[in-house]
Amino acid sequence: MEIYFDNGATTQPTEQVVQKMTEVLTEAYGNPSSLHRKGQEAERYVVEARKTIAEALHVPVETIYFTSGATESSNTALLGVAARAGKKRHILAAKGEHPATGDTLKRLAEQGFEIEYLDLDPCGRVRLESLKEKIRPDTLLVTCMHVNNETGIIHPIDQMGIVIHEAAPDCVFHVDAVQSFGKLPIDPVGWHIDLMSTSAHKIHGPKGIGFLYIRKGLYLPPLLTGGGQERRFRSGTENVPGIAGFGQAVKEAYEDMAGHASHMQGLKALLYQSLSEQIEGVSVNGAPIEETAPHVLNLYIQDVRSEVLLHTLEDYGIYISSGSACASNKPEEKSPALSALGLDAKAIDSSIRVSFSRYNTREEVLEFVRVMTQVVPMLRRFKRR
Amino acid sequence: MEIYFDNGATTQPTEQVVQKMTEVLTEAYGNPSSLHRKGQEAERYVVEARKTIAEALHVPVETIYFTSGATESSNTALLGVAARAGKKRHILAAKGEHPATGDTLKRLAEQGFEIEYLDLDPCGRVRLESLKEKIRPDTLLVTCMHVNNETGIIHPIDQMGIVIHEAAPDCVFHVDAVQSFGKLPIDPVGWHIDLMSTSAHKIHGPKGIGFLYIRKGLYLPPLLTGGGQERRFRSGTENVPGIAGFGQAVKEAYEDMAGHASHMQGLKALLYQSLSEQIEGVSVNGAPIEETAPHVLNLYIQDVRSEVLLHTLEDYGIYISSGSACASNKPEEKSPALSALGLDAKAIDSSIRVSFSRYNTREEVLEFVRVMTQVVPMLRRFKRR
Repeated sequence: MEIYFDNGATTQPTEQVVQKMTEVLTEAYGNPSSLHRKGQEAERYVVEARKTIAEALHVPVETIYFTSGATESSNTALLGVAARAGKKRHILAAKGEHPATGDTLKRLAEQGFEIEYLDLDPCGRVRLESLKEKIRPDTLLVTCMHVNNETGIIHPIDQMGIVIHEAAPDCVFHVDAVQSFGKLPIDPVGWHIDLMSTSAHKIHGPKGIGFLYIRKGLYLPPLLTGGGQERRFRSGTENVPGIAGFGQAVKEAYEDMAGHASHMQGLKALLYQSLSEQIEGVSVNGAPIEETAPHVLNLYIQDVRSEVLLHTLEDYGIYISSGSACASNKPEEKSPALSALGLDAKAIDSSIRVSFSRYNTREEVLEFVRVMTQVVPMLRRFKRR
Repeated sequence: MEIYFDNGATTQPTEQVVQKMTEVLTEAYGNPSSLHRKGQEAERYVVEARKTIAEALHVPVETIYFTSGATESSNTALLGVAARAGKKRHILAAKGEHPATGDTLKRLAEQGFEIEYLDLDPCGRVRLESLKEKIRPDTLLVTCMHVNNETGIIHPIDQMGIVIHEAAPDCVFHVDAVQSFGKLPIDPVGWHIDLMSTSAHKIHGPKGIGFLYIRKGLYLPPLLTGGGQERRFRSGTENVPGIAGFGQAVKEAYEDMAGHASHMQGLKALLYQSLSEQIEGVSVNGAPIEETAPHVLNLYIQDVRSEVLLHTLEDYGIYISSGSACASNKPEEKSPALSALGLDAKAIDSSIRVSFSRYNTREEVLEFVRVMTQVVPMLRRFKRR
């Protein structure tokens, strides 16, 4: 038996996604830039996927630019805004951002940009008052993730958009929607979002593909130049199988988004309730579970080292995460969100992330809890010896 | 019947490539950065592909960095070298480069770099004497493609490497090997190549994946920052299915590279000989066919507009190319190599590219010739009316 509870790191592509990709790889393998029918056949898959995504978000198709994933999207967004900054130097960001944003902001700081961080409430959410206080008429950019990848807390993107739009109409608002797109409703136009980064592999699509939404009327210079694909904004032969797979994944995610969310929210409640009833010293990091994204649960397990727990659980075929799945070992890099919450290294070291997909079941949750009641006391005894 | 003679634009992934990707998509879908077994399982595919590629090129595994394709590789290479240029401003490039290089050089020119172009011989090959004359102790970078995508001419990369190494040992040598990798032997170490860009989809691998070779000891800043993947050089969750598919494609390409080359060279000779025997006014653009890459044949067809011919041929299920498969309609952008050869817009407009894969057959070539003997006279009559 395999219980995959690490869907915040990546998800399993659905059968239909794999089928769509196989179809493109074996049949529609042409280059969309080729003028002949074999090229047009490939191009149609790109057009279809872009349409699916645009309709899901209620935005024009020409605002969706495919990239190799959210990291490229966020880099393109932040570096592009910086390149056309003029004299503006002031950037606001939430603490605890994903390194695709965080590390790119560090590069901008080296180039002379002034990065200021927004205060968080005790749950880890951006405080709107802090945004109101810190935003200035010359603020170039506000960047914030929608759902935090570690804790699942939901930043008030809709209200932030209004504040920004009123206080500094020219300020660009970039949202990292990697953990929310396809799971929570997003309204880029209504929320005054200018730029939005997403990734396919978090919603049962393939790795290596994402998009950057660019609000109509906003000009951004390209990061990659060359053949002029994606209306000259993102050169490089289109990853047609990836794009087609992404489109399929979006279609499936939006078919019953509320139903999926409610299912995952139910799993989360069941897991937390059962676990905290049966094991002492278990608590939630971040916001109360009913306020966070349906698929993410970050737990503090007293007197257990999360990495040891992770490896113990994998012997039972259970996969969870300690910190976010990034290639780092420094605490503040390993867990920017928990650090931003004020947890010390020891507490971070005892925290795990359980993250669901819509395909997880109550049986899996109960089996997870059963295994935890075995291994946690054992690990604690071991630790206390 | 379908005859795909546009393998310079892109190729059909082999069955084994698709199978390997499906295996990753359905089974090994973990995130390589995850600490558990599901992550390690995915990581092994990345390790294996990197090893296959490194062994094929006789280079250390740590010199291979996966990217989203050749455009990202070339952009990362050129922008990275420019970012660490110090006071050096002089860059040498071949004329007729692919826009992934050409357009990125234009960006560098805007930043104050001095781009000088190497002279070509009448066949379109870089003249070594020109390199010797123009290279300076303060030359920052020489960039050149190995095989030209439009004409198939082979630049003397091995000898260029020696000239550069002797004249300006600190000068960086970047090679765009998109059309040669997996088709012709390449020896990055022996040829003094510092940086090399490749793409999987030109050798029966998937779109959306490539690598940048970075010579041991050369430091380049990353283009994309974030999670720190690829030893902190290329952030973003690894495109594991793409990487695994690329590795498989490289394995197959190297299994009998000389045999494949000789097969394609045979098809090229057969096609050119038969066609020029049966149709008047057909000649080769660039070098004699025995001197160019085995898979590329660029033909001038007098009094025929290549786009009209392309669309006529597609009605017979035959796919070829007019110019390179990039999203452009300007002649010098549509066909940088033919422009560099000195062909005027009219001649470029009457030129086609036929490009083979190792899976094409003599029967396909003879059918192509048969169809051409029907349609070319017809199109000429039509044009002359």
